[in-house]
Amino acid sequence: MGTRLSSSALYSHLWGAPATDALFDERAMLQSWLDILAALARAQASLGIVTPEAAEAITRSAKVEALDLEFVAEQTRFTSHSTLGLIRGLQRVLPEGAREQVYLGATVQDLTDTWFGTLLRDVGELVAAGLRGIEARLRALALEHRDTPMAGRTHGQPGSPITLGYKVASWADEAGRHLDRLREGRARWCVGQLAGAVGALAFFGADGPELRARFCAEVGLADPGISWTTSRDRIAEFGGVLAMVCGTLARIGTEVYELARPEIGELAEAAPPGAVSSITMPHKRNPEGAEHLDTLARLARSSAAVLLEGMVAAHERDGRAWKAEWIALPEICQLTAASVSLGRRLLDGLEVRPAAMAANLAKAGGLSSERILVGLAGKIGKHRAQQELQEVFRSGADPVEVLVGRGLATADEIRAWSTADAVAAAGAMVDTVLARGPR
Amino acid sequence: MGTRLSSSALYSHLWGAPATDALFDERAMLQSWLDILAALARAQASLGIVTPEAAEAITRSAKVEALDLEFVAEQTRFTSHSTLGLIRGLQRVLPEGAREQVYLGATVQDLTDTWFGTLLRDVGELVAAGLRGIEARLRALALEHRDTPMAGRTHGQPGSPITLGYKVASWADEAGRHLDRLREGRARWCVGQLAGAVGALAFFGADGPELRARFCAEVGLADPGISWTTSRDRIAEFGGVLAMVCGTLARIGTEVYELARPEIGELAEAAPPGAVSSITMPHKRNPEGAEHLDTLARLARSSAAVLLEGMVAAHERDGRAWKAEWIALPEICQLTAASVSLGRRLLDGLEVRPAAMAANLAKAGGLSSERILVGLAGKIGKHRAQQELQEVFRSGADPVEVLVGRGLATADEIRAWSTADAVAAAGAMVDTVLARGPR
Amino acid sequence: MGTRLSSSALYSHLWGAPATDALFDERAMLQSWLDILAALARAQASLGIVTPEAAEAITRSAKVEALDLEFVAEQTRFTSHSTLGLIRGLQRVLPEGAREQVYLGATVQDLTDTWFGTLLRDVGELVAAGLRGIEARLRALALEHRDTPMAGRTHGQPGSPITLGYKVASWADEAGRHLDRLREGRARWCVGQLAGAVGALAFFGADGPELRARFCAEVGLADPGISWTTSRDRIAEFGGVLAMVCGTLARIGTEVYELARPEIGELAEAAPPGAVSSITMPHKRNPEGAEHLDTLARLARSSAAVLLEGMVAAHERDGRAWKAEWIALPEICQLTAASVSLGRRLLDGLEVRPAAMAANLAKAGGLSSERILVGLAGKIGKHRAQQELQEVFRSGADPVEVLVGRGLATADEIRAWSTADAVAAAGAMVDTVLARGPR
Amino acid sequence: MGTRLSSSALYSHLWGAPATDALFDERAMLQSWLDILAALARAQASLGIVTPEAAEAITRSAKVEALDLEFVAEQTRFTSHSTLGLIRGLQRVLPEGAREQVYLGATVQDLTDTWFGTLLRDVGELVAAGLRGIEARLRALALEHRDTPMAGRTHGQPGSPITLGYKVASWADEAGRHLDRLREGRARWCVGQLAGAVGALAFFGADGPELRARFCAEVGLADPGISWTTSRDRIAEFGGVLAMVCGTLARIGTEVYELARPEIGELAEAAPPGAVSSITMPHKRNPEGAEHLDTLARLARSSAAVLLEGMVAAHERDGRAWKAEWIALPEICQLTAASVSLGRRLLDGLEVRPAAMAANLAKAGGLSSERILVGLAGKIGKHRAQQELQEVFRSGADPVEVLVGRGLATADEIRAWSTADAVAAAGAMVDTVLARGPR
Repeated sequence: MGTRLSSSALYSHLWGAPATDALFDERAMLQSWLDILAALARAQASLGIVTPEAAEAITRSAKVEALDLEFVAEQTRFTSHSTLGLIRGLQRVLPEGAREQVYLGATVQDLTDTWFGTLLRDVGELVAAGLRGIEARLRALALEHRDTPMAGRTHGQPGSPITLGYKVASWADEAGRHLDRLREGRARWCVGQLAGAVGALAFFGADGPELRARFCAEVGLADPGISWTTSRDRIAEFGGVLAMVCGTLARIGTEVYELARPEIGELAEAAPPGAVSSITMPHKRNPEGAEHLDTLARLARSSAAVLLEGMVAAHERDGRAWKAEWIALPEICQLTAASVSLGRRLLDGLEVRPAAMAANLAKAGGLSSERILVGLAGKIGKHRAQQELQEVFRSGADPVEVLVGRGLATADEIRAWSTADAVAAAGAMVDTVLARGPR
Repeated sequence: MGTRLSSSALYSHLWGAPATDALFDERAMLQSWLDILAALARAQASLGIVTPEAAEAITRSAKVEALDLEFVAEQTRFTSHSTLGLIRGLQRVLPEGAREQVYLGATVQDLTDTWFGTLLRDVGELVAAGLRGIEARLRALALEHRDTPMAGRTHGQPGSPITLGYKVASWADEAGRHLDRLREGRARWCVGQLAGAVGALAFFGADGPELRARFCAEVGLADPGISWTTSRDRIAEFGGVLAMVCGTLARIGTEVYELARPEIGELAEAAPPGAVSSITMPHKRNPEGAEHLDTLARLARSSAAVLLEGMVAAHERDGRAWKAEWIALPEICQLTAASVSLGRRLLDGLEVRPAAMAANLAKAGGLSSERILVGLAGKIGKHRAQQELQEVFRSGADPVEVLVGRGLATADEIRAWSTADAVAAAGAMVDTVLARGPR
Repeated sequence: MGTRLSSSALYSHLWGAPATDALFDERAMLQSWLDILAALARAQASLGIVTPEAAEAITRSAKVEALDLEFVAEQTRFTSHSTLGLIRGLQRVLPEGAREQVYLGATVQDLTDTWFGTLLRDVGELVAAGLRGIEARLRALALEHRDTPMAGRTHGQPGSPITLGYKVASWADEAGRHLDRLREGRARWCVGQLAGAVGALAFFGADGPELRARFCAEVGLADPGISWTTSRDRIAEFGGVLAMVCGTLARIGTEVYELARPEIGELAEAAPPGAVSSITMPHKRNPEGAEHLDTLARLARSSAAVLLEGMVAAHERDGRAWKAEWIALPEICQLTAASVSLGRRLLDGLEVRPAAMAANLAKAGGLSSERILVGLAGKIGKHRAQQELQEVFRSGADPVEVLVGRGLATADEIRAWSTADAVAAAGAMVDTVLARGPR
Repeated sequence: MGTRLSSSALYSHLWGAPATDALFDERAMLQSWLDILAALARAQASLGIVTPEAAEAITRSAKVEALDLEFVAEQTRFTSHSTLGLIRGLQRVLPEGAREQVYLGATVQDLTDTWFGTLLRDVGELVAAGLRGIEARLRALALEHRDTPMAGRTHGQPGSPITLGYKVASWADEAGRHLDRLREGRARWCVGQLAGAVGALAFFGADGPELRARFCAEVGLADPGISWTTSRDRIAEFGGVLAMVCGTLARIGTEVYELARPEIGELAEAAPPGAVSSITMPHKRNPEGAEHLDTLARLARSSAAVLLEGMVAAHERDGRAWKAEWIALPEICQLTAASVSLGRRLLDGLEVRPAAMAANLAKAGGLSSERILVGLAGKIGKHRAQQELQEVFRSGADPVEVLVGRGLATADEIRAWSTADAVAAAGAMVDTVLARGPR
């Protein structure tokens, strides 16, 4: 059992997702590393740097289940070296001829940065896939509720009408932009690292660049062209995009949290069977998924900040910035996976209550004070209309009555103004977003 | 005189650049706002919402020099409204018929978000232009010093050789990726905002979307298709890219700061004539530009974090997140402009001292312990070679002597290994980066 | 006019307060600096380091209105030195004999850090004074509404009753802890700096420590005992406390913002006369003060983070961390002053609506589901009671009817349980907080 | 095996310390929770709320080794409730009569916040103990090297002399202030939580406050007097102090990292036996401990920021802020424990090289340019002296020669000036710090 709640037996499901657990579980992670070492050996064999037999033996034997992980852990601590324990553990299960040919000329950073490259690729794709599902759900919701009127709210105060579809289309549009970002960034991000001691690949002489190209191809990543040991913008950018994805889902969560207040009652989270919101207040149905999206976004932002700070790295390797990435990058990957998965579940089960929306809208000043303003402005000028209406609404009295009483408009005029289609443009904006198609 | 050091008479040049001063000086900012109001009036005139005469009058009269700014400021405070003071000031200088036709159906956020759109466009282009200059300088430096050997340093410790060109090429490559980001993001960022009260454009009925399209075109921005009053990913992303740009320049600054230590002495900042590093220690020549790049990056990151947090916004307008952008977005624009301008100056004046580089490299263990390791590994296996060499170098004695003494290699072998071209691959990586061309 | 919205003619009132404007306005700041230089001269005169005549002349002439600030600014830029411009400007107005005796042996950091010491003292006191006013208002509110029942809300959902007094007492208690922090920290924070070139005060030989003691006394600060040029925990801690103060006020603001939703309607901000919430929706009364408290807290946190990062400073002076403080410390001082002043105004004008509180509480399930649970638990065991009640409340039917129907309790029993004084302890907690007295 | 590197078998030792592992290991954490539940039962029994037999049974049976943790985990996921799984697991091992009497009237937050209270107490004491050891070591080092001269460095450039003792005394002074903070904060922090559903303790009627007092006493914490479910300043402040502690150790680490550069060579980390710095560059001895202190401080700052943000919490419980603490508070506790433990190890093994210090100082311009300035200023006025010296030092020629050549001083004068005791005050400052005694 570990020392972090995020990876605990009881709570890990809140801070990750099965798909990322499969990447970050310690054994899985070690297997990824071993796969990278095997890929290196094969690339080296293709250039005659190691023997084909060694490459084959390494590929065959580099299996986490074959290793004595206690020995690996003990050697890791003893050598104060991040991978020497693993290497020594691996050498124990390799045939003698291969032992000296594993991890040849590579460094810890070559291993972990190449692993990072695969994370940027795999987690990037996983997040994109999740977002595509969310985008599809949002597009369907936007279409379904294209014309479901509800109060628009600014500064927490209900005002003129919008439609739910318009609100959701704004989410869909934002999610779509993240898909663009993930697609555009991929070519920058998904690269391997083979840099050697100081980035100059001296160990391999003139063969270095060609070896790197083959190694990257073996791992399924692009060749960066130049070592990036202290050029960490890729990691920082990826972290920023993930934090933005979490931000969007927290924005959606916030909306559900607020509109699920019983006093508003326009949206609700589905209650999973068996779920208990509160032991002491049994009637409550808490928007805990909605809340958790915000929690995840906070933590994701905090990891993204660490990655951004890490760009300022010294010389050819800077342990200060780099080791912070070891914690922050996996963390933000797992938090984002949790966020996308929870966001999807929340949206799938979202309860929409058009009647409550209509009722709140009616309470918030009939239809559209904005439309009344338009109408009145047409008669008495906009700024005078604005002043008059402010007094009217501040008075607390029935606006129609007061406006009629002041001789500013007839009841018929007011009705006509405020029933003019206040949400025509909202529907048109839904259409515009939908017409762009999924990303 | 203001209350912020960043805009003070004495120090503003450290925290901004002339090109951004021209955008953010209060009068210039107000003129931008007035221009946007005039653009709105013209767009509205084209749809018959206001009269052509009013649009013309507004366009003609909306000049900051015409306004009574004390009245504007006083009304801003009196109304607790962000733009009503400006409107009232403007109305005073408009012919009577136009007074009621200005700012029609628009909100503070329409004005300031459209202004933000122009900032993302103009500051984005300004930063890109600065980066292109930096990239060009870096490419030239990388070419010039393609083969200038120096010690690579990891964990602050000199090790195997690299070339200065390789180091600089890594900077150029990173700067180039920022140019890609700025180019890719532009289409997402440079949009106007016309949302009305709650985003639904109800004031304009079915004309809303068409009016927004014409308004955006008048301002020189793209049409977002849907209101984005609480969809702030554009702002967050732009802030993230600017913080990354500052991060790269801080990385360069850090390198200059460290390599300009007299004990290392490989690089130096140019000393501008007249500059005084230290009154109390007259002989000193401080890398203050290099340091300041780091200072700017810290502050830029802190503003970027505010913008990222701002994505979690409620409903159709959320003053909490939005008003924080009013401070953080202009701030990061100005800090980045200062950074790009200072970075360019630093690189233009950078003194390179190849002799010191060579001397330090020689002191750091002759040429390449990595190459000796390669050679020795070929004789006795890599892991044994690694252990032997570690003992040898830890002993402090002359490595060649000890290795020969231990019978592990002849002096000739060692010389051959360590003079093998340890930086061949470094040069090749420079070529790779240069071959990609400027972005 | 400056380049920062925060110090603009139109908006500076949102981002500062008159009391801090009086400290940070550029002329006031320069005068503080000149006062520090005069204090230094007097301390030096008392030890015979400068002549008494020079000290007198400097004290008399070091007035900002005497300086040619354009010359000062021009020399600041020309020398790239932060105070040489000021010194040269000052020398121009000094009698010849005093010119060489000003700023003797001091550095930029001695000047600005001593200024920081006065800020920590003066802004600390100013914030404490503001907080004491807020605490007093909160204590009065807590007492007044000790027994005003309202729904407690968890996860945004109304539940069992609390009293408004209890809620406010929790704010008062938190504000009180800030006053403790400000008082405890003062002795650590309010120190001067006289360090000289590298902190060792070599310029003054063995007189250094005594000179520093006298200088600090002249400025009205404590003697730090040892130079603190790169020991920045004082600044970081102060920033952290200010950010926490803003956090508490943002917590209060958030509560007002949420409870001022018309659908809840339990609290409201006072509308200042003349204030216009929305031009396009004239009936709205936005909780803009409440929102702005949150905005200020976001920005304050971001400056606090810069100050915290600044603790990791190298050697005897580190321009990277130090110059970031130049922006971040004044900024957080001004933001906090704005927050305290706005918070006070908000609380002074706060409208409390007990009727709405009672109505919402009634709607949220009569009185106390928690009390019903207690009663039922006494009959059938707590965990069965919890399960039964959850089913009952989920069913949406009248709880009393269902419970009676299921034979679990009589209507009389239920009434007795839920009218038991659910808020007795809440009132007692108010008493506990009030009994502690103001801090 | 977990999914977080920080709690992995291979690397957890880098991100925690044995003493905190003993608190945060999942089984230990669960046992703490069970102990809190038992304390609650005992407190309740003392007031007749549960039977003495139940309290005894709960105290006896609430042992983590008795629980079926798979069942607990499964029920945690099934109920989506944070502690119901644990309760159900516990009930299984309780005698029937006690089953309904466990966790009576308490909530998840009562349990976890009380646990937080114990963490603030136990981790606070643990960090203080570690700091006291560090302070003692620093005081001894400061005394030992009170008069060991070395170059002071500003902006990365060596300048006038300081002593190592002075540098170290500044660290000791800073560490001492943290001890003051930890001591002062303890009374605020170490409180329990018993709040019930909405903080009003309604479940217990008028007994609530007395029950809370007894419960807190049973757990060994102070009684907060009022529920603090959304009053999170304690947590934020504690996080801030821990981040500052890490900041100080990162400052020390940075100094070691920089001064351990072979080109400077004044300090070095001890190399633990068996440790391997670099496989590819066997001669290197990396300051990896020094670096890691900076890494830990970055991550600690990022968690502290999450805790600070968490102060802005809504209503009587806010899952968004609160659940983020679940990750960030344990994390910063473990990171700080790792930092303190590593810092102690680093300082214990620190190698000091006075000869290198002397040599670097000599190279940096003989003794003290500041002292020469003093002397020359006595002859020709300070500002002329400063200008002359700047020219002299910029020229690169031998300063003594040039000054003599210019007729500004005799060689004897210059020698006298620069051998005047430039570090007298530095030594005195060491004495001042030592005289204050350990905190």
